[in-house]
Amino acid sequence: MWDRLWIDVHLATDASGTGQPRGDTFGEIRNAAIAAKNGLIVWTGKQADLPDAPHKLAHEVISCGGQWLTAGLVDPHTHLVFAGDRSAEFAERLQGVSYAEIAQRGGGILSTVRATREASEEELLEITLKRARRLVENGVTTVEIKSGYGLTLHDELKQLRVARAVGHALPLRVHTTFLGAHALAPEYRGKQSEYVRHICEEMLPAVAEANLADSVDAFCEGIAFQPAEVERIFDAANRYGLPVRLHADQMSDLGGSLLAANWNALSADHVEYANEQSVRAMAAAGTVAILLPGAFYFVREEKLPPIALFRKHGVSMGLATDCNPGTSPVLSPTAVMNMACTLFRLTPGEALAGHTHIAAKALGLEKTIGRLEVGMAADMVLWDIEGPHELSYWIGGVKPSSRIFGGNPD
Amino acid sequence: MWDRLWIDVHLATDASGTGQPRGDTFGEIRNAAIAAKNGLIVWTGKQADLPDAPHKLAHEVISCGGQWLTAGLVDPHTHLVFAGDRSAEFAERLQGVSYAEIAQRGGGILSTVRATREASEEELLEITLKRARRLVENGVTTVEIKSGYGLTLHDELKQLRVARAVGHALPLRVHTTFLGAHALAPEYRGKQSEYVRHICEEMLPAVAEANLADSVDAFCEGIAFQPAEVERIFDAANRYGLPVRLHADQMSDLGGSLLAANWNALSADHVEYANEQSVRAMAAAGTVAILLPGAFYFVREEKLPPIALFRKHGVSMGLATDCNPGTSPVLSPTAVMNMACTLFRLTPGEALAGHTHIAAKALGLEKTIGRLEVGMAADMVLWDIEGPHELSYWIGGVKPSSRIFGGNPD
Ligand SMILES: [Zn+2]
Ligand SMILES: [Zn+2]
Repeated sequence: MWDRLWIDVHLATDASGTGQPRGDTFGEIRNAAIAAKNGLIVWTGKQADLPDAPHKLAHEVISCGGQWLTAGLVDPHTHLVFAGDRSAEFAERLQGVSYAEIAQRGGGILSTVRATREASEEELLEITLKRARRLVENGVTTVEIKSGYGLTLHDELKQLRVARAVGHALPLRVHTTFLGAHALAPEYRGKQSEYVRHICEEMLPAVAEANLADSVDAFCEGIAFQPAEVERIFDAANRYGLPVRLHADQMSDLGGSLLAANWNALSADHVEYANEQSVRAMAAAGTVAILLPGAFYFVREEKLPPIALFRKHGVSMGLATDCNPGTSPVLSPTAVMNMACTLFRLTPGEALAGHTHIAAKALGLEKTIGRLEVGMAADMVLWDIEGPHELSYWIGGVKPSSRIFGGNPD
Repeated sequence: MWDRLWIDVHLATDASGTGQPRGDTFGEIRNAAIAAKNGLIVWTGKQADLPDAPHKLAHEVISCGGQWLTAGLVDPHTHLVFAGDRSAEFAERLQGVSYAEIAQRGGGILSTVRATREASEEELLEITLKRARRLVENGVTTVEIKSGYGLTLHDELKQLRVARAVGHALPLRVHTTFLGAHALAPEYRGKQSEYVRHICEEMLPAVAEANLADSVDAFCEGIAFQPAEVERIFDAANRYGLPVRLHADQMSDLGGSLLAANWNALSADHVEYANEQSVRAMAAAGTVAILLPGAFYFVREEKLPPIALFRKHGVSMGLATDCNPGTSPVLSPTAVMNMACTLFRLTPGEALAGHTHIAAKALGLEKTIGRLEVGMAADMVLWDIEGPHELSYWIGGVKPSSRIFGGNPD
């Protein structure tokens, strides 16, 4: 007997982006059924092909009234753990106050660092859970969460423990990423190389020892960490057996995407300025390009990521909210899918793939989540829509009618 | 005794935009209380100034735990009543298929007209209620709904009856607008003047007779109706005592905003191309400029509405979702507020005013809704936020924790 069987449902089984024909086609099984047992998908197909009457096959049969089922949404790039409120700064920047001026007054990223350091672990968990619950309501079943607002060993560990705790408190898989190299810790002003040494020799070993990170990230940019510094960090990550990813080529082409590919990174993220050589290397290494249209939109960036090159060379394009207080206060994956289509001209098929199986690949989880296939975790979302296109079409017009995590409806 | 008393709450009493200093300030009463009786607000002020102990003042006392209360959101421009699905067309247009080509294949607005005509009144109500419920969940307490996808007397009346029925089915005030001059009915191809005569002499009288419209609208644009045709329609509206509003200056400067002002229109909507003479006339007439950043974003318009001129001459700027299947599939007022700030550089204060009391003014309802003031309807929304700025800051990150309609929590 299966645990649960969903019938009278249409399945969005796959979408363009990995071997499937690109464009507007969605892999789909209409008038389908899907079954779960012990948290995994154990049967999918046409309802008419079920081996027996539904109630003889499963302990519970759920009729979906012709709604659509997708894999649970995966959000592979967030900075969800932070304290403080920068919405007033958002308003100031709109009125033309420069980032430098805001930073001078104590605003900007360091204000988030200050507030995050000051918050207790309990407080930080409470406000992070509020945000994580919005992601859950919006259909997310797996989320990546980075540190990077602590910038001391103590506070980075605190952020990562909070990230892990989110996964224990909610029906949500959490992939944690150590991002000590998000910004220079203020205590190290003028001593960036020393801070990198601190990351490699003290922070990273302690993070690995406590098993608090599933991957390691850095912010590679003129205003942040240079390629050679990133390589020192990636080398240390390698020593601890941790996969890497990179904030790359967001504001300029420092060759970050190429560097990421050379280190077999799971993903290179932002990548607006990635050049063709980098794109080729990403394709060869299987490094996913994570596009962050929310940040693009909020900072009114004008340089589009090289979508045509990613398509040409077969680089998988993932999507993420990049939820963070400074440049992407976004908690809606479907809004991200809309922005990816409207601003980057992705197809709705690519957008859905970007927030499901390609996002899963960027977390190294492509074998366990992201597709409605036998053997995968039964993380699924039911939507009252006419077809998968609608997920990328509406702003604020679709929300899950039900979410299923590990085979259990919320 | 009051019916209900909310305590331990912060009130966003007003926002910039009408006489208040502009910029980032919100009118606010912190640590406040607010009471309702018979559907109206009967007391607001500091909680410490309540005349007696809360439980002696009201039948029900609700503690809000320090959350923020705003007036219910008002959405003063929607095309909510339509059938058919144009999300696939959205995908095609992203890939460069021209509107003309889509129209030739039977897509575009006339596909919506066809589907809306074919739908029964019951079907149309059911799909419209689905959308209206999303608005309600997103904090809307009053919505304007236009006809304009029927384009026959029978189908325009059907759309307007559905719009009225939405207001009976849900806790939502509905203002209906007759928009027979949305597009040329296909039966009148080559006979536009005759269609305008049909609108003025047959449709409008019947709509007025049935008391199905609270105002009259037209689409003034090169590809739609010309200024002289709009004037014939406005003249007919005048004869039936119906106020007017206008889709004006969206794609070109036809002087639509000036025309609207000359007819004392409640609002001129879109207005990207309005010139300074038009803006001055709007100010003198008290015509509200309804900005529709959702449509601006979806069609990737580049011409910004003349925000500086509206501010300079004191034209009130309202905001609306413009929810429609072709150019603005948007059902989230807070997303509209974010787009107004991010794309048009409104302040968060202007954005909140735009979706509350200024939107109310655009519906002629400024004396009954849109502000947390004694005598106004007790339409209110409770938000778990640090301050009103946050409403414009997040995409998908805020939603009402409770909505109150006519003094009654949903
Ligand atoms: Zn990031
Ligand atoms: Zn409109």
